[in-house]
Amino acid sequence: MIGYHSHVPMFQSALFSKTQREAPKDEQSKNAQLLIRAGYINKEMAGVYSYLPLGLRVIEKIRNIIRKEMNAIGGQEVLLTTLQDPDIWKKTDRWDDMVVDNWFKTTLKNGTELGIANTHEEALVELLQKHVSSYKDLPLYIYQFQTKFRNELRAKSGLMRCREFLMKDLYSFSKNDEDFTMFYERCAEAYMNIFQQVGLGEITYRTLAAGGSFTKGFTDEFQTITDAGEDTIYVSEERKRAINKEVYEEGIKELGVEEQELKEYKAVEVGNIFPLGTKYTEALGLTYKDESGEEKPIIMGSYGIGLGRLMGVIAEVFADDKGLVWPRAVAPFDVHILKLSDSSGANEQLQELQSALEAQGLELLIDNRNISVGQKLTESDLIGIPLRIIVSDKTIESGKYEMKYRNSDLVEYGTLDEIVAKVE
Amino acid sequence: MIGYHSHVPMFQSALFSKTQREAPKDEQSKNAQLLIRAGYINKEMAGVYSYLPLGLRVIEKIRNIIRKEMNAIGGQEVLLTTLQDPDIWKKTDRWDDMVVDNWFKTTLKNGTELGIANTHEEALVELLQKHVSSYKDLPLYIYQFQTKFRNELRAKSGLMRCREFLMKDLYSFSKNDEDFTMFYERCAEAYMNIFQQVGLGEITYRTLAAGGSFTKGFTDEFQTITDAGEDTIYVSEERKRAINKEVYEEGIKELGVEEQELKEYKAVEVGNIFPLGTKYTEALGLTYKDESGEEKPIIMGSYGIGLGRLMGVIAEVFADDKGLVWPRAVAPFDVHILKLSDSSGANEQLQELQSALEAQGLELLIDNRNISVGQKLTESDLIGIPLRIIVSDKTIESGKYEMKYRNSDLVEYGTLDEIVAKVE
Repeated sequence: MIGYHSHVPMFQSALFSKTQREAPKDEQSKNAQLLIRAGYINKEMAGVYSYLPLGLRVIEKIRNIIRKEMNAIGGQEVLLTTLQDPDIWKKTDRWDDMVVDNWFKTTLKNGTELGIANTHEEALVELLQKHVSSYKDLPLYIYQFQTKFRNELRAKSGLMRCREFLMKDLYSFSKNDEDFTMFYERCAEAYMNIFQQVGLGEITYRTLAAGGSFTKGFTDEFQTITDAGEDTIYVSEERKRAINKEVYEEGIKELGVEEQELKEYKAVEVGNIFPLGTKYTEALGLTYKDESGEEKPIIMGSYGIGLGRLMGVIAEVFADDKGLVWPRAVAPFDVHILKLSDSSGANEQLQELQSALEAQGLELLIDNRNISVGQKLTESDLIGIPLRIIVSDKTIESGKYEMKYRNSDLVEYGTLDEIVAKVE
Repeated sequence: MIGYHSHVPMFQSALFSKTQREAPKDEQSKNAQLLIRAGYINKEMAGVYSYLPLGLRVIEKIRNIIRKEMNAIGGQEVLLTTLQDPDIWKKTDRWDDMVVDNWFKTTLKNGTELGIANTHEEALVELLQKHVSSYKDLPLYIYQFQTKFRNELRAKSGLMRCREFLMKDLYSFSKNDEDFTMFYERCAEAYMNIFQQVGLGEITYRTLAAGGSFTKGFTDEFQTITDAGEDTIYVSEERKRAINKEVYEEGIKELGVEEQELKEYKAVEVGNIFPLGTKYTEALGLTYKDESGEEKPIIMGSYGIGLGRLMGVIAEVFADDKGLVWPRAVAPFDVHILKLSDSSGANEQLQELQSALEAQGLELLIDNRNISVGQKLTESDLIGIPLRIIVSDKTIESGKYEMKYRNSDLVEYGTLDEIVAKVE
């Protein structure tokens, strides 16, 4: 099935979002500055951003890439809730603000305090009590796209660290360690597929990290190299793996790599996969009966990717001094057509081009506005659609369109057939 | 573009949600009782429900029907935020709990109180300051699918009145009353198209209602007749319109109908459209320059449909004593195939049927579980997929499949070709 993309008018004259000369003064991150200026997002407050039509379109493309990979490894999609019952969280000892330090909470009319979900392990384990009882019900891989809320003390990295953000979170439920490990590795592969597809494959590494409060042993992060990152990682190019600075010594031993083959980089986490063991299932009493009728605890894992953060990282990593540069798989449109003339010839040529590209299944944004050529070119660079095609009096005269990829300086000219053959 | 449906395994043995013998004791509404028992939703607390794979699939079908209609009338899709800046709400005097009595609020680490969105007029008007300045920028129709949070004192009607719920909200921005009214009527038509498509067209009426705190004059609700409804309406069949009891006298005059042609019904609101005038745009200073350079206020309207409520109403209205009965357009699957034999003949016949129906683009749920025939039939009725086809030793012997529509008692038999011709 094809993913549905949020509607954006094809003609830029109808698109409500305008590019902005300047980002808000308090916006320090390059990703959010550019995304705000180009009309992809709006800053509501620090760490809280709305998605405008172009931005939502990028999010939907990312969502569909992730969804396809999660379905391919057996994921079943659900939608859990934001409002959370404190009683469940007390059973795992995570209700207290001293234990989980980034809770947002709210209160019902009757005075009962409620949680505003920062994650969903508790809710899902509790839910599964009604659906899982036997070894026949396992394994299960359940995921959702749901907004998370985290009361961050500071939020200064644009889309990379938000107080409100859309996340894909998958949870695995396995009978034993062997089954768990098998899925954990399959999901790690699916994650690398995802980062490859969104264009970050070359600079993203599966990275050993500390177990955190969840588990003993290591967890795996997926880290993308960028100077805007908050983490430091050590990369082995040969192994296509990395080690987070926080577990440098242990990581070297675990991976069996030599110190001299490692290179230090700043990086940002674009995904993580966590062994959770039986921490949540035991605390909440989620067990299964094995083949011999014995009650056993269920082994759990969690697997997260922040969609907005991923969009922010892609924006940050590929941008140049003129603006955004989207990889085609996540670009809001495939082709940006600039019509620089209002002559009947230009309208005919546009019509011809539009029909031919649409027949190829390409998604087009057409700048038909009555503004200066310079402004059209500047805004087109800022918006960053992968391919720009110009229709002008010059192209009409020559019978050839002018074409330029956003990530190249090369300007090419071609007839309609040549253009179509090229972009196919 | 085709809507993406959340992934559900085609084989019921892999689907994690199980049917339940009983709904939670505190669940009083028929819609939620059935949806919980059939494994569509999970009750997290009063008025707060999670969507399981079958339920999410219904929601996605409803979402795509609505999205298509909103795009058709020029809607541009965005995604605003849940966390809300109090300063904006103070400008329209809606921050105070005495003014808006169903706020959920929360607090940042630095002590700043934040709102948890119950609606998005303020946020969108504020956002548009950066994008709208001239008559050339208007009209605009902007919509989203976003979760709303309302601190209801009581929440006892299942999906019909929730504390957390997914809503489509569209906001219109027009230069003058004439433009506004034109769109308002177009949107009213689009709403009737939506209710028609989801199967509620025959029992849903555009209904005059009180202006509420927003406007003088009337607003329009869309009311579906059901004994589970909280509202009382007076229907004119002839005019295909209705009047809410709260504006009975004035409504009769406004519509120009005779009292004797009206019939009283209980009904539930499945959508509403509101003239908002310049209340929000004036309070927040959103104006446009007209052709002569004069600053003018923008006329606004809002247009809402709750997706979960709509699902709940459909469930409630069509259910019978055996369970849910979905109209095909919103059913989680088109066909429920029950395989009642494990013989190689049955497996072959299933394979043949599956290929033929999939070639027609039909979505299939296949009950291949090793449970009793009686249980399969009972659960199939509870889940309520429109068409059931049985593969059994009997069907193999006769060379004919057994087929029954959920909303009929007639059992039919047909060869593969006859079945395919019928379901097409």
